[in-house]
Formats: sequence, C-alpha cells, structure tokens
Amino acid sequence: MKIYVDFRLPEDALSCLREETRAHELLFPPALSGTVLEPGGVDEGFLDAEIALGQPSPDAVAVAERLRWVHVSSSGITRYDTPAFRALAAEKGLAVTNSAHVYNEACAEHVLSFMLAQSRRLAEGLATPRFESGEAWLRHRGGCVPLRGQCVLIVGFGAIGERLAELLEPFDMKITGCRRMPRGDEPVRMVREAELPDALRGADHVVNILPDSPWTRGFFDEARLGLLKAGATFYNIGRGGTVNQEALLERFARDPGFHAWLDVTEPEPLPADHALWREPRCRITPHVAGGHRGEALTLVRHFSANLRRFECGGVLTDRVM
Amino acid sequence: MKIYVDFRLPEDALSCLREETRAHELLFPPALSGTVLEPGGVDEGFLDAEIALGQPSPDAVAVAERLRWVHVSSSGITRYDTPAFRALAAEKGLAVTNSAHVYNEACAEHVLSFMLAQSRRLAEGLATPRFESGEAWLRHRGGCVPLRGQCVLIVGFGAIGERLAELLEPFDMKITGCRRMPRGDEPVRMVREAELPDALRGADHVVNILPDSPWTRGFFDEARLGLLKAGATFYNIGRGGTVNQEALLERFARDPGFHAWLDVTEPEPLPADHALWREPRCRITPHVAGGHRGEALTLVRHFSANLRRFECGGVLTDRVM
Repeated sequence: MKIYVDFRLPEDALSCLREETRAHELLFPPALSGTVLEPGGVDEGFLDAEIALGQPSPDAVAVAERLRWVHVSSSGITRYDTPAFRALAAEKGLAVTNSAHVYNEACAEHVLSFMLAQSRRLAEGLATPRFESGEAWLRHRGGCVPLRGQCVLIVGFGAIGERLAELLEPFDMKITGCRRMPRGDEPVRMVREAELPDALRGADHVVNILPDSPWTRGFFDEARLGLLKAGATFYNIGRGGTVNQEALLERFARDPGFHAWLDVTEPEPLPADHALWREPRCRITPHVAGGHRGEALTLVRHFSANLRRFECGGVLTDRVM
Repeated sequence: MKIYVDFRLPEDALSCLREETRAHELLFPPALSGTVLEPGGVDEGFLDAEIALGQPSPDAVAVAERLRWVHVSSSGITRYDTPAFRALAAEKGLAVTNSAHVYNEACAEHVLSFMLAQSRRLAEGLATPRFESGEAWLRHRGGCVPLRGQCVLIVGFGAIGERLAELLEPFDMKITGCRRMPRGDEPVRMVREAELPDALRGADHVVNILPDSPWTRGFFDEARLGLLKAGATFYNIGRGGTVNQEALLERFARDPGFHAWLDVTEPEPLPADHALWREPRCRITPHVAGGHRGEALTLVRHFSANLRRFECGGVLTDRVM
C-alpha cells in the first residue's frame, strides 16, 4: 500500500517508520509540515495513497479516490469533525483514527501538574523567598487544599480523561465524567449534558478536555461558567475555542477565589495585550500538554501498531470515524 | 490527666480540643508559641502535666516527673532525636509520638507537585507566553519526560514516603525506598544504606524525606550527590540540614541537566544573597509542604485519636520512642 506522510519526522522516528512500513511504499510531499498540528501540504502523490498519516486537508481527502484510512497526527480532529466530512468518510468507507493514545499520558500528567500546582499554591510558594510574618506563612499554608476527597468533573471524557481518572485514583476524589456519547464502559460516573449543570455546581475542579467542533464551540459560556461553585478551579487542555474567554474574564472579576489553568487559548499564542495575561489567577502554558520526549517515535509506534491491525482487517485503536 | 499545650490554636481547633479532652484538664503556658515548629514556652504548670502536646523543651521534659507522653506537633522530631533524650525517654518510660499522619497527605502531594512540575517543565511553560519558533516549541515539548516508567528513590521512607508511593502507583514507576531501620512491611522495595549507592546511581528522581538527626546531618554530601545520574532531579522535603548545600551547588555546576526542588533549606529562610537563589534549576518553596487547610484541626483530631488509645493503654499511632 502507499502511505502518504505530510509532516517532518526526526531521524529516529523516520527510520522507525521506514522499518515498520517496509512492506509498503512511503510518499512524502515536497513541502513537509513542521509540526503535527499544521495542515500538511498535498501533492499529486496523495491521489495514489491508500493511507494518509498526518493532517491532510479535507478537500484533498475528498478527491483521493484510493484513500481508505486517515491517521490524524493529533488528538484533536477539528479539521475533520464536521457533518460534511463525516458524511464523506461514511460514503467512502474511510476509516479515521486519531493520536489520542500518543498524547494521553503527557496530557493527563499535565492536567495533574496543574491540579497539584493549584492545590499546593506552587507558583506563589516558588515566588515567595520569605513571608513577612509567621501569620502570613500560616495563611499561605492554610490556603493549600489537598486534592484528597475533593470533587473533579472531567468534560470531554475520552482517552485523556480515562488516564487522568487512573492517575487520580489514589486521591479518593469524587470523579465525574461527561461526554457527548458515553460508551457505557467508562471507569467513572458519567453524566449526560442534561445533568451537567448539577455536576458543574458540585465540582471543586472542572477539567475541560473538549475537542473543537461545532457542538463544542464556546461550550463554556457565561451560563456554564456561572454555575461553578465559588472558589472552583477551571482547567482547559482541550481546545481554546471551547471556552468563551470573555465569560472567563467575567468569572474572574466576580469570584475572587476562582482560578484557571489553560494550556490552550484562542488564538494561540494569545496576543501580548490580552486581558487574560493580566489576571494573576489565570495561568497559561503554550499548548504543550501533549508534548513529551520521543513524541514523534511514540506517534510512529502508535501508527505502526494500527497499521498491523489495518493489514489484517483488525479493529483500529483510536478510531473516531 | 493534665494535658499541657504550648502552642496557639485557631478557634475551631481549640474548641475541638476542649471537647475531645473534656474528661481531662488542659494547661496552657502564659506565652503560647505561634507555630507548630517553634519550641513552646514552659511554665511551672508543666511540672504537673502527664501529657504534653506541642514542642516542649527537652530540658523541661527531663524535670517533669509526672510526664508520661509527649505528642510532638510536627513530623520532624529533631529537638528530641538525640541519644541523651532517647535515653531519658527510655528511663522515664516516656512515650513520644509525632504528627507524621497530620502532614503526610499534604507533604506527599507537595512532592508530587514538584515531580510533575519538573517533568512537565511547568515553570518554564508558564513563563513563556510565546516561543520564538516552531522548533523552540518542539524542543520545549520534547524536554518533558513523563513520570511513567521512570525510577524514583525515596530516602527517609516513612509515613510521607508511604503515601507518596500510593500516589505514584498509577505511574508504573520503579519505586525504591531507604530508611535507617526498615520495618519489613513497607509497600515498596527497600534498600539498606550499604545498597544506597547503587540505588542513587539508578534513580531519575531522588526524594529526600530524611529528618534532621545526628545520623542524617549533611547526609547528601558531595559523594552521595555525585552518584546521581546525569540529569537526575533531587527533591528535599525532609529537613535542610540533611543536605550539604555547597555540594548541591557543585552538582549544579557540574551537571547542566541536574535540577533540585527544595521545600526546606538551612537556614530558613535562606539569606537573600544565597547562591541557591541564583541557580535557575533550583526551585524553592518556603517550608510549606505539610501545610493544608484545617491543619490545626487535623492535628487536634490526630492527637485526640491517640488520646483515646492512651486512655485505654492502646498502641499509639506515629510512636517514635
């Protein structure tokens, strides 16, 4: 089979890919994309490919007659998660998989690093060489609320949420998940959208892992952010567009105990003069949650394992269409 | 029985203590200590007490004829952990307990917040609104090494180490513990001091939870710090005096991948001109690892549960002598 790869791989990952696909033919466009998030360039070779690995444009997919499987190189599938593309995939019998299990460990660890940094007041502690008094020291200590026993709500519960729930298991937290279409085998209590308001009211920590899609655009709006309990903490490692950032700023203004930790914003990076940068209770990392040493190699191994399944007609991991 | 309390408690903790000790008599010195770490003032009333809660001076303990039990209000028992005091306690038949289980949850969560902040490069990420290039972004992401599967060594393995091992369980890390006198029921692989060099060489993360005692003064010296693998990370939430800070500075100078996270230093706070403040790979919080909301109440409840045991001759929790 012909496998079209549209992004640049470091040497170790590329030789692993060559080794794992030696029974097949690898095709590369002349201009490779530099990251796994950017849309890949496409040339005529794409029309011959049976398999695409990367971020091929939906338009190119539409005209690629021989294409049977697209393996998206990110967890997010925004560019494909449209009614039109879903209809196209169904019509062509096209399988679409994402890289959820490439990034879930790093993403889940990133969320937990946020949650613990929040509960341990790590940023304030690291920025305070000495307290002005014993009372100030005790106040700081008293502001640290152990995660143990607290309530966490995970919205957009998928591969990352599942791993996060595993990591949180020893903390004896009350964990609730929410997703558009629960599968029924989730390891935590799941709620549907209708029950979400109550879940939002009850959570100490709300973790947003929603992908960007027509259903999720601005999902965390004024109404939903307004339901959070006073002093709650909000995390976003899904996509920036799922949060109404104006509503987020209002929430900060109204609730002095509210905190937010964001790995994603809209746009990225956030303009230097954006009001969120001036909010000391808002902490932002620059879309790095899924990053990890050997990331490209993890991605190639994940794809290769799926390729073995594809070769023998097996069930693909992380299939999203 | 007369219970001597030498430190100031907030209202909720004090009324809980009064309620839990209503069958007994509470004695307070005229000058109460402001924190659970400072030595408490002692007046003549101390000579009548059967039980002391706080940080009574060893000299006062020596002359208090009726004293049968000292419950130390911290995890660390530096002021009592001397051959002379141990001999005194043995001679008087004095029970000594510490507050390990008051602080172990917060301390273990604090260490894990350090470990995840390190593995996720959280401080750098939060300080980088935008990367100058896609390559810089990928380099940052690639520098994040998931905890999963890495090796951690916990030196001074006690109540905090045990809880930390529980919290680390889902990470599938190789966990090794070391303590002066292993009890044999530790939930991780334990090594004795003779095997410590190999354990130090093999660890990606070395967590120091040693108390301050004659045995542990300067325990992490040039030789032991020199054994750590290149790029290892060192954590200290035990006591500052267990680390030779000159040796630590040398280690930073020699190994560009070495990082340290310290909650304790010597002295505390570290003078503003100390060289450790100028080392960007050294991150310091101001002795807050055990702090948590309701800390004094947790302490009173822990003491009260032990009081119930003491009343009926039961086995005391966190007994150290």
